Amino acid sequence: MSITGEMLIGRQAVRGEEKPLHAFNPSTGSDIAEPVFGSGTVANVNAACELAHKAFDPYRNLPLSVRAEFLERIADGITALGDVLIERAMQESGLPKARLEGERGRTTGQLKLFAQVVRAGQWLDATLDSPLPERKPLPRSDLRLQKIALGPVAVFGASNFPLAFSVAGGDTAAALAAGCPVVVKAHRAHLGTSELVGRVIQRVAQEMDLPEGVFSMIVGAGNSVGEALVAHPAIKAVGFTGSRAGGLSLMRVAAARAEPIPVYAEMSSINPVFVLPNALAQRGEALARGFVDSLVLGAGQFCTNPGLAIAIDSDALKGFVATASEALTAKPAQTMLTSGIHAAYEEGEGKLAALKGVETVARGVDTTGPTQARAALFVTDAPTFLATPALEDEVFGPASTVVRCKDEQELLAVAEHFAGQLTATLLMDSADLASAKKLVPILERKAGRILVNGFPTGVEVCHAMVHGGPFPATSDSRATSVGTTSIDRFLRPVCYQDFPADLLPEALVDGNPLDLWRRRDGEITRS
Amino acid sequence: MSITGEMLIGRQAVRGEEKPLHAFNPSTGSDIAEPVFGSGTVANVNAACELAHKAFDPYRNLPLSVRAEFLERIADGITALGDVLIERAMQESGLPKARLEGERGRTTGQLKLFAQVVRAGQWLDATLDSPLPERKPLPRSDLRLQKIALGPVAVFGASNFPLAFSVAGGDTAAALAAGCPVVVKAHRAHLGTSELVGRVIQRVAQEMDLPEGVFSMIVGAGNSVGEALVAHPAIKAVGFTGSRAGGLSLMRVAAARAEPIPVYAEMSSINPVFVLPNALAQRGEALARGFVDSLVLGAGQFCTNPGLAIAIDSDALKGFVATASEALTAKPAQTMLTSGIHAAYEEGEGKLAALKGVETVARGVDTTGPTQARAALFVTDAPTFLATPALEDEVFGPASTVVRCKDEQELLAVAEHFAGQLTATLLMDSADLASAKKLVPILERKAGRILVNGFPTGVEVCHAMVHGGPFPATSDSRATSVGTTSIDRFLRPVCYQDFPADLLPEALVDGNPLDLWRRRDGEITRS
Repeated sequence: MSITGEMLIGRQAVRGEEKPLHAFNPSTGSDIAEPVFGSGTVANVNAACELAHKAFDPYRNLPLSVRAEFLERIADGITALGDVLIERAMQESGLPKARLEGERGRTTGQLKLFAQVVRAGQWLDATLDSPLPERKPLPRSDLRLQKIALGPVAVFGASNFPLAFSVAGGDTAAALAAGCPVVVKAHRAHLGTSELVGRVIQRVAQEMDLPEGVFSMIVGAGNSVGEALVAHPAIKAVGFTGSRAGGLSLMRVAAARAEPIPVYAEMSSINPVFVLPNALAQRGEALARGFVDSLVLGAGQFCTNPGLAIAIDSDALKGFVATASEALTAKPAQTMLTSGIHAAYEEGEGKLAALKGVETVARGVDTTGPTQARAALFVTDAPTFLATPALEDEVFGPASTVVRCKDEQELLAVAEHFAGQLTATLLMDSADLASAKKLVPILERKAGRILVNGFPTGVEVCHAMVHGGPFPATSDSRATSVGTTSIDRFLRPVCYQDFPADLLPEALVDGNPLDLWRRRDGEITRS
Repeated sequence: MSITGEMLIGRQAVRGEEKPLHAFNPSTGSDIAEPVFGSGTVANVNAACELAHKAFDPYRNLPLSVRAEFLERIADGITALGDVLIERAMQESGLPKARLEGERGRTTGQLKLFAQVVRAGQWLDATLDSPLPERKPLPRSDLRLQKIALGPVAVFGASNFPLAFSVAGGDTAAALAAGCPVVVKAHRAHLGTSELVGRVIQRVAQEMDLPEGVFSMIVGAGNSVGEALVAHPAIKAVGFTGSRAGGLSLMRVAAARAEPIPVYAEMSSINPVFVLPNALAQRGEALARGFVDSLVLGAGQFCTNPGLAIAIDSDALKGFVATASEALTAKPAQTMLTSGIHAAYEEGEGKLAALKGVETVARGVDTTGPTQARAALFVTDAPTFLATPALEDEVFGPASTVVRCKDEQELLAVAEHFAGQLTATLLMDSADLASAKKLVPILERKAGRILVNGFPTGVEVCHAMVHGGPFPATSDSRATSVGTTSIDRFLRPVCYQDFPADLLPEALVDGNPLDLWRRRDGEITRS
């Protein structure tokens, strides 16, 4: 399969007639000459959205087995692309081969997991309340509830996961699983990778004779194409992973529509790590090395990168900082994903270094390439942290700050001070349990996921995962963008009152032909 | 228990120092002299919100049995108010005694149903994924998920349900059940009723020694108190039932916060009723009488009032209109809830009557009191309906329009044209099944509840109810404001990774001491 630089609108490949774009190789710092990508117009967006609207009813009403097969065949098609995909993604992202192969496995595994989820049908929330014809003063009707798809979904993938959070990533998998057509805006940072994956989805949809418009992918040079996509009346929800500015901008567009729609924007998080006193005293050095490894993983380009370590001052903390500094000093510079991300890292890291009350305690090995990031470790104290909002800004990359607290009370005050986070971590021993019990209620309010004795990088795709959290970590703390319950983002409930059997959705008929777990008169049952 | 005109802030009764307010008796058209209600200031709002914030962690971490008991004792306390409550509500609302007694039963039943829901704990969505320590290339952690309360909730009750959608109504019951403290803004239309019920909640909270701030109730003369409430950083969600203008205004305030929060606003709906050809031919007269009875019920002051009937033109439709006209002409005028609602009805009904292409076919018996509504029935044709946005505006009260379509295609076009609705209804016979099958996929996209051969007034409080729907029926189609799943509005998921048993929430520990239905490795189980 070759890359042509075209957009994919329904079953067509369409050359965008706006500004031509080149993919960029961050390792060399130069454009990739071939092919040229044509960026799209608002008319292209409209065409994709109208097709998605037309596809919505027929797609969501296909048998669940067909929807599941669609996801599985997309996964197989991605695998079948072989090294062509991996090599293109390496070129466009600067990420190493093993990482991208792992990410491909995660992407296809995620699609196959969602196929199982679709078949199991728990997401339908099938609920049946029996009629009570004899009830006084009024009889009760026969009432049945299921969830249905929200409508076509606009997906904006992430720069840092060119496969797992992109064209066929978590948002797309969850939306297609829910019964929603998807219009993807291809990420500028991996246009060729996007086209390769997009063509797999387009081809599978055509081979399975699915409604045209179940999937489209557009390319945009600036913000106007993406904003037109979010503003289009056919679009009923938005999935986004990226910067806070980008997410806020889409939230504004969505809220200003004649019909406001939900935006699931996963934006920014500094993922505090609390190093509790006994763990620090018992194994501070090992924790320091683990912390630095997590910090520099993937050049720090993870939403769950640990941007903050918080601990009570002690000799053990001095040892922790010394070990972390030593470890970080030896870490080589790494190529970042794009020149824009690199520039933002340099700026953000420079700002941290210049803050009053913030000490630079270590820098990684100096850079040797055009978009490389050099790791950095800073130390500050709790009063400075509490008084300096800039210390809470996400610096996307391998920079982190240690916050020194004078006692437990100050440590709890730091925890209480945070805005919303994707994760919060406790490094603790059993002797730290009393402190942990004070922290957990605070951290539950602040974060979507709380870890004990791990590091937040690494987000498992499973049923119990929450990759979300209070604002500004995301725009909607009620949702997760990773894991099987991410399907819930794209569903809404409908109640069917006194429907004749011939008209009821299959999930709700007597006899339970889909073999679902259902709630009948308040009791969970599969009969 | 006497009414003092004070606000309830935590355990205190506080006299509002802003503009004094009187309750209003719509039946007499005059103010109720005693007592004077003192309206509150932004400082009062802040005090209530700060107490709610402080109460949040201790309240949400109480045993579920205590939370359930709280709801049950509120219900019992409301019942124990006896006729004092009913008489005050009659004075303030103009609603008849039997209706208010029924509404009281619904309110207390709702609180007790939520107590059961709290104990059963299905809303926790307890989910456990087992660790896979041997997995290659990386082990999987122990991951567990539960839902926790969002935070303090601001509740704005509805004018038309002084008990069931007000101080201790559905929003409050769902929020308290979820573990959220509640700050109610008392509705201007039933200040005394609000105080009576609010004092019950306050007293029960104190008797049970619940954290101060779990409940407060403020009074406001204009919009500033309500807007300050929604804007307060401690408030994490809003429940509102009322006008579209009111709901949109709160949505704007919530979106403009430093931390945007969800608003569940139930706003406006005209609840289309499709009268399909065979049902119309077989039993048009009975349907017409049923339609008019539903239309004038409670002076048409229901969110689910049928504001539109749609049918294909025929002699049977002429008969339907004739019968409906005859029935409506005999319907007495009824007192509306407030002079504002009455004025809005007069204006909206007058606008409908003046629209080009809209014929007034019947008026009810003329009014005899100051805030009475006279029923009205209009007829138009589908092209006029499709070209006249004003025909889609909710006119709150006993006015409805019959839309005559020339054929099935035009009827489907009318269905496709609607904005979001709380309900859509099919009046049909088995011979109408083919038409119904074309309508249902459209109506699923448009409405939260679809009824067959019933009328939309009457909203059952049960597990399968959806009282919600796409915008502008509500601000968030993913939610219902009636029924047990309305608790989901006030919850968010949290993931606990590798937690030691001592630190895990009780819902997630091994051994399942709460006897919950949980999802373990994707399988529903109670073991």
